[in-house]
Amino acid sequence: MSEKNKDIIKPRNLSGFPDYLPGPALWRNEIIDKIRAVFESFGFQPLETPILEWAEILLGKYGDEGTRQIYRFRDHGDRDIAMRFDHTVPLARVVAQYQNELPRPFKRYCVGPAFRGERAAAGRYRQFTQMDCDIIGVKSTVADAEIACIMVKALEALGIAGYRLRINSREIAVAFCKESLMLTEPEIVQALRVADKLDKIGLENVSKELRCDIDECRKEQMWREYEIEKTDNPNTPPPLELPQPIADRLLELINCGASTNEETLDAMKRIVTDSPDAIKGVEELEECISWLPHFGVPGDAVTVDPSVIRGLDYYTGIVYETYITGHENFGSVIGGGRYDKLIGKYSSQDIPAVGTSIGIDRLMDCLELVGMSGDKNSNTAVLIINFDEKFIPDYLELSEKLRSWGINNEVYPERRHFGDQVKYALAKSIPYAVIIGEDEKTKGIVQLKDLSTKDQVEVAADRLKESLFELLDK
Amino acid sequence: MSEKNKDIIKPRNLSGFPDYLPGPALWRNEIIDKIRAVFESFGFQPLETPILEWAEILLGKYGDEGTRQIYRFRDHGDRDIAMRFDHTVPLARVVAQYQNELPRPFKRYCVGPAFRGERAAAGRYRQFTQMDCDIIGVKSTVADAEIACIMVKALEALGIAGYRLRINSREIAVAFCKESLMLTEPEIVQALRVADKLDKIGLENVSKELRCDIDECRKEQMWREYEIEKTDNPNTPPPLELPQPIADRLLELINCGASTNEETLDAMKRIVTDSPDAIKGVEELEECISWLPHFGVPGDAVTVDPSVIRGLDYYTGIVYETYITGHENFGSVIGGGRYDKLIGKYSSQDIPAVGTSIGIDRLMDCLELVGMSGDKNSNTAVLIINFDEKFIPDYLELSEKLRSWGINNEVYPERRHFGDQVKYALAKSIPYAVIIGEDEKTKGIVQLKDLSTKDQVEVAADRLKESLFELLDK
Repeated sequence: MSEKNKDIIKPRNLSGFPDYLPGPALWRNEIIDKIRAVFESFGFQPLETPILEWAEILLGKYGDEGTRQIYRFRDHGDRDIAMRFDHTVPLARVVAQYQNELPRPFKRYCVGPAFRGERAAAGRYRQFTQMDCDIIGVKSTVADAEIACIMVKALEALGIAGYRLRINSREIAVAFCKESLMLTEPEIVQALRVADKLDKIGLENVSKELRCDIDECRKEQMWREYEIEKTDNPNTPPPLELPQPIADRLLELINCGASTNEETLDAMKRIVTDSPDAIKGVEELEECISWLPHFGVPGDAVTVDPSVIRGLDYYTGIVYETYITGHENFGSVIGGGRYDKLIGKYSSQDIPAVGTSIGIDRLMDCLELVGMSGDKNSNTAVLIINFDEKFIPDYLELSEKLRSWGINNEVYPERRHFGDQVKYALAKSIPYAVIIGEDEKTKGIVQLKDLSTKDQVEVAADRLKESLFELLDK
Repeated sequence: MSEKNKDIIKPRNLSGFPDYLPGPALWRNEIIDKIRAVFESFGFQPLETPILEWAEILLGKYGDEGTRQIYRFRDHGDRDIAMRFDHTVPLARVVAQYQNELPRPFKRYCVGPAFRGERAAAGRYRQFTQMDCDIIGVKSTVADAEIACIMVKALEALGIAGYRLRINSREIAVAFCKESLMLTEPEIVQALRVADKLDKIGLENVSKELRCDIDECRKEQMWREYEIEKTDNPNTPPPLELPQPIADRLLELINCGASTNEETLDAMKRIVTDSPDAIKGVEELEECISWLPHFGVPGDAVTVDPSVIRGLDYYTGIVYETYITGHENFGSVIGGGRYDKLIGKYSSQDIPAVGTSIGIDRLMDCLELVGMSGDKNSNTAVLIINFDEKFIPDYLELSEKLRSWGINNEVYPERRHFGDQVKYALAKSIPYAVIIGEDEKTKGIVQLKDLSTKDQVEVAADRLKESLFELLDK
């Protein structure tokens, strides 16, 4: 085939599906390893679920917008299947499916990609890696506190010193809506989805949306969409149109954050005073916070924030988010919460559960933003320069020896200009080069070059191990 | 919602898409970490490509059967997309796409799932994890030898001492078919695909298939399928019907393995004597083998085997497979080879490449078969028994202290029977328990229990670190 005339397929990737080249991929692995070590230090064990599931397992768990974003198709056997949207729903499926095989409490972590057909944008990926850890089967707030602690330890493990944990219980708002504001279940789901946007669109707009006080054109469209949706799903609730006093009372609650946690908790109790389950929610929140110091979480890093609701509908209790000090408008970097009703969708009994989900790609974007990018790290310590092809057997044997000492290294495979080989090492951030030519071979020495300082020292061949260990701090 | 009347979604996974529960998942992570360490010790760096690609990137790279097995569908934007089928084709895409950003040689590894819509069966998965490492941009047989060495080191890292590396060059058979047997390119692809089945169906059946000497009914069906295929793809070759003498000569080559490598190489040279490129192939094979001892690969573990062809069409040169001694009929556990023409499908120039692909799920099946399963390993060293709920703050603080010493541990979250808590620890293969009650707290001691031997010792609280380090060999 002539190279000129052949058909070339244009090499390109799908938008929202990035490649990770070696620098970022190495850094990403480091981050994953560090967080995995945190998870394992608390006794969590890995669980791996597949990327494809029966569609019915995923449908209806993420709200309407989530459901629309699911990658769903028919396979070779015409099965209705879907790609993993998060790790929580597959976990719930596994817990229901293997109830008798899993230890209880079941503490599992996982690492892997999830897929959402969102509009691709900066910081939004259609494939993204999530690391989750969850505690299944424990109602006690000790479990909620443990998950909060793990979120904080993950940030600390990555070197982030300034962070804030914002914590709330979704139960407070839910019970308040139900018992005090007399809203129906579908109305509550809708109202909290709107309230969750407080940070993004502000108090006034949230108030407008709750009351459907929006321009006629948009309102008409909402109703049209609702009519269509209802033909598919008769349970679809109509657009929310809360009376002003109801909207105001809900807003009073989610906006009652004060300057100290004590004041906020008092304000919450005062607002929800005629809703017993909401009061219980506040007490649980207080109890959870009381455990945190015993987990080593500094008290001044924790803020009770009634506006933390979390987007996904399956949360039922305590929820939390973390923010990096000085970069609050980046949004939450790690979030999580309690979801006591999800496993019951696949099982005759409800099983309590609480967990966190760490989006690695967003976390990397965030670390980059705060100037903590690690994409220049290397996993290779030494390049053995190919000075003369006739010495390749010697280079290979030296390379093998270095490996036996635990030193990652490589031999440049072909004879090239010395400068080209050094350029190669620098491109891979390899810090040291070993040079052996005719002269060195005869004298039983090697040249050891620090590629950043350009310093070069002569070392007796039988002292190479000590010299390298010293340089590499082994 | 009453728990009795609710609709439960049956928790189940798709056939061919297994879950990995903690025991196997932990073991799997260990295997991946060990192999990753081998890759990194040779200077390989990670590369991560997405799970979804434009369909045109994958189509036509894996042969007709492979193409049929690709998971392909249309996304929300009606794009024609497909799931990763292996790591080699995405790597070729990346090398073509980022030619100026990647170091050359480019030594990359990757770990991740691939998807094939095969008939699900024991040891056959539709989603399976592959770990690949490849050297891009090096023509020298040093690179082929390095990849062979890495395959062997991966097995050694997993504790497999008895293995055999079978090595060949596909170029020998290809050039022989072309230059001596005068077959066309499509005929060669077909003939080698049949020859590759030697191990599975035996010499006689391979001979029959090469000559299309099969029963009339199957023959008719083959021709019907060919007519259909041709309407889609006019380049589809007709079923193979080689004359007996041609088939015999090809079989003579792939069946010429002798008792020593020297004898086999001599036999190959004799058979391909009138095909200059095949002779060159044999010489390359000889050269590659000559490097292996310098890489520390024992010579007596290497067999030149002219029947090693490899199923995928993209291989062009040296190819290899590994077998576990005594378990040869399990098939090859790690394979690989050179594919110098693949990157050229996405780029105006061909770039030489050689690599290996390790199927982790099959490898685990194989380790299980040879009695080396590791699914009882634990990543948690200590369970802190919840003896009295009022001591939870103490338990949490002790747990935090153990973590600061680098000891993975957990507190049992609720007060339960001691026996239940021990049962939990055993289910997770946690080796030690720490017990603190009223008595211990007052005396400033802890009880340290070995859960396998049931031995229990009393340790002064301030000597716990030393005691644990001794037990855990830290």
